[in-house]
Amino acid sequence: MCEANAYIINGEQEDLFMEKVDRVIPENGQLILENIFGQKKIIKAQIKELALVDHRIILKRNEGNEE
Amino acid sequence: MCEANAYIINGEQEDLFMEKVDRVIPENGQLILENIFGQKKIIKAQIKELALVDHRIILKRNEGNEE
Repeated sequence: MCEANAYIINGEQEDLFMEKVDRVIPENGQLILENIFGQKKIIKAQIKELALVDHRIILKRNEGNEE
Repeated sequence: MCEANAYIINGEQEDLFMEKVDRVIPENGQLILENIFGQKKIIKAQIKELALVDHRIILKRNEGNEE
């Protein structure tokens, strides 16, 4: 299975936000993440980088009114 | 290997833009895609959807000045 783990940048570090993510859908400045179990999480963030071979999705929180 | 194929929405259909994509980095309203061979492509587009288990990255071209 080729799901990835989603991490959110928190200062100098990356915090695990969701494991085994299958789908990511940007919508209205938010991201809808769905894992392989069908569970969903919504976060006001952007994709900063995908590194699929490493199974990594790096997210960055939106600041202020930025989308 | 868990790379994915990137498709660009073209009207009603999806055209293959790049195969075996490893990395995707959004930058200044553009996307930098890099495949597992280290080849890069840049496109003025956004990520519309990731479906990693299906190995699919769906892109949508930016229209006008939208980022």
